[in-house]
Amino acid sequence: MKKLVNDVHEVVRESLEGFALAHGDLVQVEYDPAYVYRKQAKDEGKVALVSGGGSGHEPLHTGYVGYGMLDAAVPGPVFTSPTPDPIVAATQQVDRGAGVLHIVKNYTGDVLNFETAAELAQMEDVDVRTVVVADDVAVEDSLYTAGRRGVAGTFLVEKIAGAAAERGDDLDQVQSVAQAVCDNMRSMGLALGPCTVPHAGKPSFDLGEREVELGIGIHGEPGYRRTSMREADVLVAELYEKVREDLPFKTGDKVVTLVNGMGGTPLSELYIVNRKLGQLLDDDGVEPVRMLVGNFVTSLEMPGCSVTMLRVDEGMLELVDAPALTPGYRKGM
Amino acid sequence: MKKLVNDVHEVVRESLEGFALAHGDLVQVEYDPAYVYRKQAKDEGKVALVSGGGSGHEPLHTGYVGYGMLDAAVPGPVFTSPTPDPIVAATQQVDRGAGVLHIVKNYTGDVLNFETAAELAQMEDVDVRTVVVADDVAVEDSLYTAGRRGVAGTFLVEKIAGAAAERGDDLDQVQSVAQAVCDNMRSMGLALGPCTVPHAGKPSFDLGEREVELGIGIHGEPGYRRTSMREADVLVAELYEKVREDLPFKTGDKVVTLVNGMGGTPLSELYIVNRKLGQLLDDDGVEPVRMLVGNFVTSLEMPGCSVTMLRVDEGMLELVDAPALTPGYRKGM
Repeated sequence: MKKLVNDVHEVVRESLEGFALAHGDLVQVEYDPAYVYRKQAKDEGKVALVSGGGSGHEPLHTGYVGYGMLDAAVPGPVFTSPTPDPIVAATQQVDRGAGVLHIVKNYTGDVLNFETAAELAQMEDVDVRTVVVADDVAVEDSLYTAGRRGVAGTFLVEKIAGAAAERGDDLDQVQSVAQAVCDNMRSMGLALGPCTVPHAGKPSFDLGEREVELGIGIHGEPGYRRTSMREADVLVAELYEKVREDLPFKTGDKVVTLVNGMGGTPLSELYIVNRKLGQLLDDDGVEPVRMLVGNFVTSLEMPGCSVTMLRVDEGMLELVDAPALTPGYRKGM
Repeated sequence: MKKLVNDVHEVVRESLEGFALAHGDLVQVEYDPAYVYRKQAKDEGKVALVSGGGSGHEPLHTGYVGYGMLDAAVPGPVFTSPTPDPIVAATQQVDRGAGVLHIVKNYTGDVLNFETAAELAQMEDVDVRTVVVADDVAVEDSLYTAGRRGVAGTFLVEKIAGAAAERGDDLDQVQSVAQAVCDNMRSMGLALGPCTVPHAGKPSFDLGEREVELGIGIHGEPGYRRTSMREADVLVAELYEKVREDLPFKTGDKVVTLVNGMGGTPLSELYIVNRKLGQLLDDDGVEPVRMLVGNFVTSLEMPGCSVTMLRVDEGMLELVDAPALTPGYRKGM
């Protein structure tokens, strides 16, 4: 294993220290327990958003703390859920009396720990609601999941619910918007190779020299099939069809799309994926009103990508377009 | 080779098509000859900035076309200079009568082709100036270079000169600011592994399982030494010392730093690099007034990073902080 790390057990802490140095204008980092929150005077009455989960998906979640997105993020060890303690601490830190929405990717550990944290925070009179993101259509249950996995679409939940909270929506409304995003969004990914968790020291799985894994999870969990490597357009068509059929997306729908890099795929290849996605949508009469391309929700250095589609109406699109100012995503300000 | 491509000879064109779909609000893409330019009404009297070079370094250069940065970018084939034709076309397209600054990374092909293009454009009465970026302290001459190579610091030249042009500086002033950035900036990188150029189909070099290449170029050109893999802090200290000594940077200097990912290194590792960089600067009494961390100038999927330091005064810092709105970089708007 070759990685730019020192002690494999200090990867998250040291990374947070470097993150704090780079983004001290936007965020405050706490180390014990570890969480990141927005650096600004409390704005009484604003609903607060807290997310978190295992590290290794950067910029998710810590990189999305800031104006128009999250109020706090709780990074666990690499690919491992944070315990309830830091989630409670973050929740109490950012509560402004208007309640807190927990945005949780659907993995057993995350769901359990956020649930416990929510109960503990509620005992301290914080009104906590939860939305569980499960956008991955690849498999129904998986290694770490009862039900579908939460993947790249989590970025869009954080962006859109964050914009709703920022404009002053109350807790019911923010929860409702976040749920609407989940209900109208589907994703699927593929990997051309594995990633290596620092403390594991070896690749998360083996893939043949000419193999690709379709339906890969963001921790390298198995997808639904392996096939021999094909040209990008063929692979993208399979991702697209699985995603499209599932909701299903129909002629006349307006969608926001997200071609997400898993970490080790050049931006130029992600744009080739986006090109084909645009052609397929055009063929089906589905209108991509915004197309996002980049490394939004990664799996360390895994080569691969995912395609996310979100059906939007005018109201939701307004929230997509609303300003955001975070270390990992900036829009309109 | 496993890559999300179709025809290896159509990688740049197909990628541009996907780029155009994603960023049609900001840029216009021309295909024959191929260049990208800002989508907005011409603002008479604004100095125009044109850059370009081989593809494979995305978001450089096409991703930096937009408000506050470049007016046009000319992407060559992967790791291969564009010919003079598209450079001339881009230059004429964006000239507003106030002259054009060419920002050229110091590689023999780029320097020659931009020089020819400048002469041709001048024959058409466009006032063209050129600044050559050669920030890499690793080697004095190299495979593709007479003199030092231009690497990640090119982003800062484009950002800062772009801000100067945007506020209305004339051609002399913009050229002078761009040159000042080059004169006060140094970089060095390392690689933990190679990248694979699509049309080559095999890795650009071999590196042992426990080896790291110090002073790597952004096309995988050799650095100045190979050594066995060490912890991040040791490697960062070597990059830092080479960079610091070269200018040299001194106690009391204010610097903007850039920890740049080469493409295949997780953001979390780049922050670990940034952490050590911050400690080293602190030890030397050099003040990092801004610390940028991310994939700004990549080498396809190469795992590795570089460290850039730019000595700034108040005037230059103002340009660093000025608004930018491009596909690959947004700041303050």
